[in-house]
Amino acid sequence: MTRPSFIIGLDLGGTKISAGALSEDGKHAHGMRSVATQAELGAEGVVDRIIGTIEGVILDTINETGATRKDFIGIGVGAPGPLDREKGIVVVAPNLGWKDFPLQDRVKSRLGLPVTLDNDANCATVGEWWLGAARGGRNVVGMTIGTGIGGGIILNGELYHGASDVAGEIGHTTIDVNGRHCKCGNYGCLEAYASGPAIATRAREALVREDTASMLPAMVDGQLDRITAEVVYDAAKKGDGLANEIVRDTARYLGAGIATLLNVINPDVIVIAGGVTRAGETLFTPLRTEARRRAFGSAVKAARIVPGELPGTAGVVGAVATFKMRTQGSL
Amino acid sequence: MTRPSFIIGLDLGGTKISAGALSEDGKHAHGMRSVATQAELGAEGVVDRIIGTIEGVILDTINETGATRKDFIGIGVGAPGPLDREKGIVVVAPNLGWKDFPLQDRVKSRLGLPVTLDNDANCATVGEWWLGAARGGRNVVGMTIGTGIGGGIILNGELYHGASDVAGEIGHTTIDVNGRHCKCGNYGCLEAYASGPAIATRAREALVREDTASMLPAMVDGQLDRITAEVVYDAAKKGDGLANEIVRDTARYLGAGIATLLNVINPDVIVIAGGVTRAGETLFTPLRTEARRRAFGSAVKAARIVPGELPGTAGVVGAVATFKMRTQGSL
Repeated sequence: MTRPSFIIGLDLGGTKISAGALSEDGKHAHGMRSVATQAELGAEGVVDRIIGTIEGVILDTINETGATRKDFIGIGVGAPGPLDREKGIVVVAPNLGWKDFPLQDRVKSRLGLPVTLDNDANCATVGEWWLGAARGGRNVVGMTIGTGIGGGIILNGELYHGASDVAGEIGHTTIDVNGRHCKCGNYGCLEAYASGPAIATRAREALVREDTASMLPAMVDGQLDRITAEVVYDAAKKGDGLANEIVRDTARYLGAGIATLLNVINPDVIVIAGGVTRAGETLFTPLRTEARRRAFGSAVKAARIVPGELPGTAGVVGAVATFKMRTQGSL
Repeated sequence: MTRPSFIIGLDLGGTKISAGALSEDGKHAHGMRSVATQAELGAEGVVDRIIGTIEGVILDTINETGATRKDFIGIGVGAPGPLDREKGIVVVAPNLGWKDFPLQDRVKSRLGLPVTLDNDANCATVGEWWLGAARGGRNVVGMTIGTGIGGGIILNGELYHGASDVAGEIGHTTIDVNGRHCKCGNYGCLEAYASGPAIATRAREALVREDTASMLPAMVDGQLDRITAEVVYDAAKKGDGLANEIVRDTARYLGAGIATLLNVINPDVIVIAGGVTRAGETLFTPLRTEARRRAFGSAVKAARIVPGELPGTAGVVGAVATFKMRTQGSL
């Protein structure tokens, strides 16, 4: 039996760093962990935390498997974009406060291992494709709905980056040309309606505007600014009318955005991950109905729309996968 | 010197059939022609007209070049979709009144030459990519704006068809989730705002609603149903206020749709063809501004947005190109 090799995956987010090691075939995971990013430490401080996290993964993997440090062949990193993948640079990351930071080189020089860098939403999509809900797909669209709406696109079995590594910014498809202002500067982006904070905002707006019998205010002790998307899902599951309306509207917005993707990209899988999946079938059933009503029949028939199967780890798994694809050509 | 070979391209539309022969290297065109489709003759009658048109192309090419019938190596056909490309079947073509018609086999058996079939909008995009305004692009989005809005997508140098040959239906991206009803059944599709007939409809609606000093009614002798998109462009060029407003709105709708494509597909070229290009810079200048305002900076920087260079022949040229790609693997 040949000795197994390991690849480390790291998913860098604005609030947390997640990491773990996978055996090269993806069958075994070791040392999975998550720590606070502490972006306020600045880029070099965050790099210290990244290195510490990876060292912890390596030690745990060695303890669990009897591997040696030579058995780790590299590190895949997923980071918020825009990125310059070729140079391994994070061009701008508002949530981290970074600009033109050479993350790939910093991690490489500190650990002496090959490092690749890719967009975090791309990694999450690839993770679900390699080991999760999008397995077997040839043309896959991944959406990660949380603080924002990120996306990744796999076409003809390969991660698609576009002309300048921007491809897959699914949160910034226009669903209303005259609609809500979005943080990106555009108006009517899907993200401005269906991200976690947008869901909470729509609930608060409705409560302020209308005198309803909703249980939402009581759930946050009257402090409406404490309403989050999760609070809305919980209330909807308990039968709250207003919360259910907010979730149905969310499904309608997402369904319209997904219909656009079905008609333009014609994928065989659309995998939806992130906090929004906690809403479960309350969201997914009307979302699928809306997409079916709006998109071309043969595009609808060709695609399954599924929740992600790797909550919390898709980004790490996908970071490992992107390292494999970049350095070995395939998974 | 080796004897040149020729490939015939045929572009089948609801109102006209266009065809011509290209030398294999695309450098010489012969026998270019266009005849009325006469869809009312039914599928077999239209096939007769297709065969007659191709025979004319062959004779002209022989006369012009001294070629023999053996020098024609095949026929690429572009037809309205949805299609089953593998089987060479036109699945549904509302403008022709066809359903499940085996066009590829019919043409092949009548002419004894290899035939390939692809979507007409895909062909137009490939034509502009091979010999027109999108030359040199690696990731190209083509839009053909006429009676409808069709589209084609070239990714990593290959025509992209998606999971069920639907990919590239750019006219059916939602730009307003609560918007105008579209012929496809969806609401708020780009096509429902920016196709030729939609432009004319918006002009008529404005004239009926408002009492303006527009020159449009006089241009059609008071018969508002004779207003077409071309009439609107003409009036805009002459300085008509209402017509200019309609063109600016068109640019805004197209700019929003294009911003979505920039953010999701991140192409290096967006080529816009069809009747709408007759509006010239009156349309293209505000359209580029709108797209620039709405899309991510690095996606905007990566892409040139250009009018097509092959009006009337992009579909024929692209039909030849798709034949080459299907039978020889590349252009």
